[in-house]
Amino acid sequence: MTVKQLTMPELVAGCVELGIPGVGLWREPVAEFGLEATAKLVRDAGLTVTTLCRGGFFTAIDPAERAAALADNRKAIDEAATLGTDTLVLVSGGLPQGSKDLHGARERIADALAELGPYAASNGVRLAIEPLHPMFASDRCVVSTLSQALDIAERFPADQVGVTVDTYHIWWDDTAPAAIARAGAGGRIHTFQLADWITPLPQGVLTGRGQIGDGAIDMREWKGYVEAAGYTGPIEVELFNDELWAGDGRALLAQTAQRFVQHAA
Amino acid sequence: MTVKQLTMPELVAGCVELGIPGVGLWREPVAEFGLEATAKLVRDAGLTVTTLCRGGFFTAIDPAERAAALADNRKAIDEAATLGTDTLVLVSGGLPQGSKDLHGARERIADALAELGPYAASNGVRLAIEPLHPMFASDRCVVSTLSQALDIAERFPADQVGVTVDTYHIWWDDTAPAAIARAGAGGRIHTFQLADWITPLPQGVLTGRGQIGDGAIDMREWKGYVEAAGYTGPIEVELFNDELWAGDGRALLAQTAQRFVQHAA
Repeated sequence: MTVKQLTMPELVAGCVELGIPGVGLWREPVAEFGLEATAKLVRDAGLTVTTLCRGGFFTAIDPAERAAALADNRKAIDEAATLGTDTLVLVSGGLPQGSKDLHGARERIADALAELGPYAASNGVRLAIEPLHPMFASDRCVVSTLSQALDIAERFPADQVGVTVDTYHIWWDDTAPAAIARAGAGGRIHTFQLADWITPLPQGVLTGRGQIGDGAIDMREWKGYVEAAGYTGPIEVELFNDELWAGDGRALLAQTAQRFVQHAA
Repeated sequence: MTVKQLTMPELVAGCVELGIPGVGLWREPVAEFGLEATAKLVRDAGLTVTTLCRGGFFTAIDPAERAAALADNRKAIDEAATLGTDTLVLVSGGLPQGSKDLHGARERIADALAELGPYAASNGVRLAIEPLHPMFASDRCVVSTLSQALDIAERFPADQVGVTVDTYHIWWDDTAPAAIARAGAGGRIHTFQLADWITPLPQGVLTGRGQIGDGAIDMREWKGYVEAAGYTGPIEVELFNDELWAGDGRALLAQTAQRFVQHAA
C-alpha cells in the first residue's frame, strides 16, 4: 500500500531490484491481479509475503452484518494461506452507527476471534490485532492501545491471536514500551510496522502517514523495544500518503528502502 | 470559545438570559475587550468565571523561549486572579522543532510547574494540566492521557497543580475512568469539560469538536465518573467547530445549553 501506484509486477520487480526480501500485501490489489497469480508472482521472485492486510471489522451488532464479516474473514484467512504468509492483520472496526458503547464493541471483537482463531491456526495463519491511533476509535478501530489489543489477544493461544506493533499508532503512548515487552514475552508480536508521525493531519486523517525520518518518531527507539522483547521477524514500512502516492512509485520505493537503512537498519 | 462569534457583552448577556451560571474565558478575547473591563462585566452580571484558558507551552528548549513562556504564564496567572477564577487551564506544548524526545518534553513541563505552581497558589489560582488527544502529541501537547497528566501533577501540591478532564480528549481511553478516580482522590480535578467526538476530522483536526449529543461520547457516563470521584465543580462545554462558528452565536449558545440539559444534566 506504501506504493499503491505500482502494479503488482512493478512492485515485485522493484523489491527484487532493491534487495527488499519481503512484502506485505493488501487484499484489494491482490484480488485485482488475481490471488493465485499474485502468489505465483511473489513466490517465483523469491519474496516472502510478510503479512496480508486486512481482516477485521468485527463490531457490527446486526446479525447479518456480523455473519458477513465472519465469512469475509474466513476468506481472508484462506487468501493469506494461499499467499504463503503466516499473518493476517486485523483492523477491528469502529462503533456501529449511533452506538456509544466502546466496551461492548471490544467484546464483540473477542467473540469474533473465538470463532476465527481456531480456523486461522488450522490454516497456519495467525491473527494480528492492530491497535489504531485513538483518532480512529469511533470509525475504524475501537482498539486504541497495545494494552487493549493484548487484553483481547491474551484470551486466545498466541498461535491464534497476537498483535501488530505499528509505530504510527502507538508512538505517543508512554505505556507502550511495557506493552511491547508483555507482547513479546507471550510470543504475540506478529508483525512490526513503521511509519512516521507528521502534521498537519489531512482531512479525514487516514492518509497522513509520514515517510520514515520526516516526523516525530524515533524508529530506532521502537525497534529497540521490539528487539528487546525478542522479536526477530520482518519489519514492514506502511505509508498512506496522498502526496507520496501522487509521485513516481519506483522512486518512492527506492526512497523508502533508503530511509529504512538510514533510520532503522 | 464555543461561541467565539459573540462579543464579550453578547456572551455575558446570553449566559444571563439562558440561566448559564458561569463561563470559561480565553485570554485572547479577554485581552481584546480589556482585562479589567471583562472582569467588571462578568462580575456585574453575577457570572462565575469557571476557568481561564490557557497557559502552558512549556516544552521549548531554547532558554529565551523558555523564559518568555514562563513570563507569559505568570501574566496568565495574574489575569486569572483579576478575573476572579481559581483555575488556569494549561496546554502544555508539543515537541520542539526537530525533537523526537517526548520524555524530555514532559520533564520540561514539570520543571516549569515547579517555578509556576507556588506563584499560582499565592495568587489563589490552581494550574490544571489538560491532557490533549494523542493526535495533538507532536504539535500541541505531549501530555496525551490523564495518567500522564497526573504523573506530572502529583509531584506538586493539589492547590498548585491538578488536571482538566475533557471528554473529547480521553473518551477512547479505557484507563481514564480509573485515572479520574485517582485524580478525584487527590483533589486534583480542577475542571471538567464536555465536547463530543465526531468524524470525519477536519484538516489539521483542531476545529472538529462536536456539539454535545452529535457524536460517540456518552456524556452521562463521564459525568458519572467525575461525580463518583467527588467532583462538584462547574461543567464546561468547549466546542471548536468551524461550522458552528459560521452560524448565529446566540442560537448556538441556546442550542448548547439545551443539549447540556438533554445529555448531561
